[in-house]
Amino acid sequence: MTINNPYFDQNVLVTGGAGFIGSNLSRRLVDLGANVTIVDSLIPDYGGNIFNLQGYEKKLSLNIADIRDPYSMNYLVQGKKFLFNLAGQISHTDSMKNPYVDLEINVTSQLSILEACRIYNPDIRIIFASTRQIYGIPQYLPVNEQHPIRPVDVNGINKYTAEQYFLLYNRIYNIAVTVLRLTNVFGPRMRIKDARQTFIGWWIRQIIDGQKLKIFGDGLQLRDFNYIDDVVEALLTVGTNYKAFGNTYNLGSNPISLKDLAELMIKINGFGNYELEPFPPERKVIDIGSFFADYSKIKSELFWEPKTDLKIGLEETILYYRKYLEYYL
Amino acid sequence: MTINNPYFDQNVLVTGGAGFIGSNLSRRLVDLGANVTIVDSLIPDYGGNIFNLQGYEKKLSLNIADIRDPYSMNYLVQGKKFLFNLAGQISHTDSMKNPYVDLEINVTSQLSILEACRIYNPDIRIIFASTRQIYGIPQYLPVNEQHPIRPVDVNGINKYTAEQYFLLYNRIYNIAVTVLRLTNVFGPRMRIKDARQTFIGWWIRQIIDGQKLKIFGDGLQLRDFNYIDDVVEALLTVGTNYKAFGNTYNLGSNPISLKDLAELMIKINGFGNYELEPFPPERKVIDIGSFFADYSKIKSELFWEPKTDLKIGLEETILYYRKYLEYYL
Repeated sequence: MTINNPYFDQNVLVTGGAGFIGSNLSRRLVDLGANVTIVDSLIPDYGGNIFNLQGYEKKLSLNIADIRDPYSMNYLVQGKKFLFNLAGQISHTDSMKNPYVDLEINVTSQLSILEACRIYNPDIRIIFASTRQIYGIPQYLPVNEQHPIRPVDVNGINKYTAEQYFLLYNRIYNIAVTVLRLTNVFGPRMRIKDARQTFIGWWIRQIIDGQKLKIFGDGLQLRDFNYIDDVVEALLTVGTNYKAFGNTYNLGSNPISLKDLAELMIKINGFGNYELEPFPPERKVIDIGSFFADYSKIKSELFWEPKTDLKIGLEETILYYRKYLEYYL
Repeated sequence: MTINNPYFDQNVLVTGGAGFIGSNLSRRLVDLGANVTIVDSLIPDYGGNIFNLQGYEKKLSLNIADIRDPYSMNYLVQGKKFLFNLAGQISHTDSMKNPYVDLEINVTSQLSILEACRIYNPDIRIIFASTRQIYGIPQYLPVNEQHPIRPVDVNGINKYTAEQYFLLYNRIYNIAVTVLRLTNVFGPRMRIKDARQTFIGWWIRQIIDGQKLKIFGDGLQLRDFNYIDDVVEALLTVGTNYKAFGNTYNLGSNPISLKDLAELMIKINGFGNYELEPFPPERKVIDIGSFFADYSKIKSELFWEPKTDLKIGLEETILYYRKYLEYYL
């Protein structure tokens, strides 16, 4: 994008902006000349990491606040042209262990963000990050946006509830909202401390540490992965395209089996191994089998498609964590 | 039912038990020999009315508590065989004016009721009252349980979220849950103070008061109405039928246009009139046009069908409010 890019000198609010996707987006927005305000609670183990903003600390405004605090949000949405709403509780297992926290963050807070926008800044453009988890067990593949919504965990139910709020506020109050349903996203600045949020972050950590990767089941289940730069591009694209307002889009990529993914990672890493093991019961009940999304809607309407080869993305990611591992332990 | 009926001497908890449906159900359960505990907050204007329990005060236990209070519910679910979970915020317009309250009552509290059951009484049988409102604008008629879920207001989104929680806890924790999606219910003990919750309650009040009924739109929109006794029968039926566990059922009846309904009510009442008027904007945005539900699933699986003729139901209702109007003002 040139200096005439639509984000230049625009005020942009990014919730969860110290997290994985939020920090990568915020850095890119700063590079594009936007005036970025980050809202992040930096709750330990939720994904926010001050190191993610390294080198950009003075180029953006970091506002430590919890989106569960409606008063802060009432103030912070004012004067902003864009809201990239990425803050969320994203652990499926956590959502079963503590469904209230998931509800507060993924539903109640989203409603208060919408109310803040409705009352204080109805002209704001909102991009809401949702998840493939809402679809549940695929009834067909690839899963398009018309697929039945059958979440298999509290997290999926709650994320879908928030989606519906955003689209309702679009229909009723004419607030410019777009919902992006993300699939597995990976890349620099993701959380790699454990498997609570994503297994791929945990695999990256294990492979760097020389530990054996564990695959639940037969390893033949398919997943799709988007490299972070492609997801940032998708967010920026929908943010400024009026066709996207009031719409919901899947992201996605070519699927790969977990076994093949493990082998690819081991090859890139230069060493490592993996083993298959039975599902633990608490994961089996919320497992969805093979999944990959149909992203033809965003491709045909907004001309987005993933550009980063999986191998290159993984190389970049492993390189990053070899270099900065200490900040993600 | 005989003395060998499945509710005889059983401990039954009814949330919202001083409200319209809850009180009629509770009275019937007492008649069947059940040990009924009612939970009701008796919040003014929510539908709970102590007069609804008249004559039964000493035959049941009335526990004043708000379902938003998780500590009370943790205690109250213990030792119960059945939970008829009827408490809710049911005003569509209120849900848009104060979405937080709707969320607290219809989502957060439902989750805490489920958690209470999971932890303290996982063998309880739960019957959850949901609403046709979750379907939104019908894409076809009659609307069956497979119809897409497209709620047009916060209330519909929230009720569907709760449904999903109940069915998830059935699948994951094996709690015996049934969801009933109610359509327009009418009869003695309903709230008739204003149009906030149901228009038919308000019409009954107006016709008794000799006021002109107002129909929004052309009056040709169809609706289906269930008389309260039929709904109580449906609740009792699903509660004890193992086939119903984990399932969702519509209730319903033969549809009638609002214009024909108004004319029928005026005829029964002996006097009155009505007029058509344009939709107020705040109602137009959440109006769903014609609606009537397909109740063939519950009919074929559990042999329930509505038995009360609309005319007879309306006669009973108008008679009741002529007699007891002062308690419902």
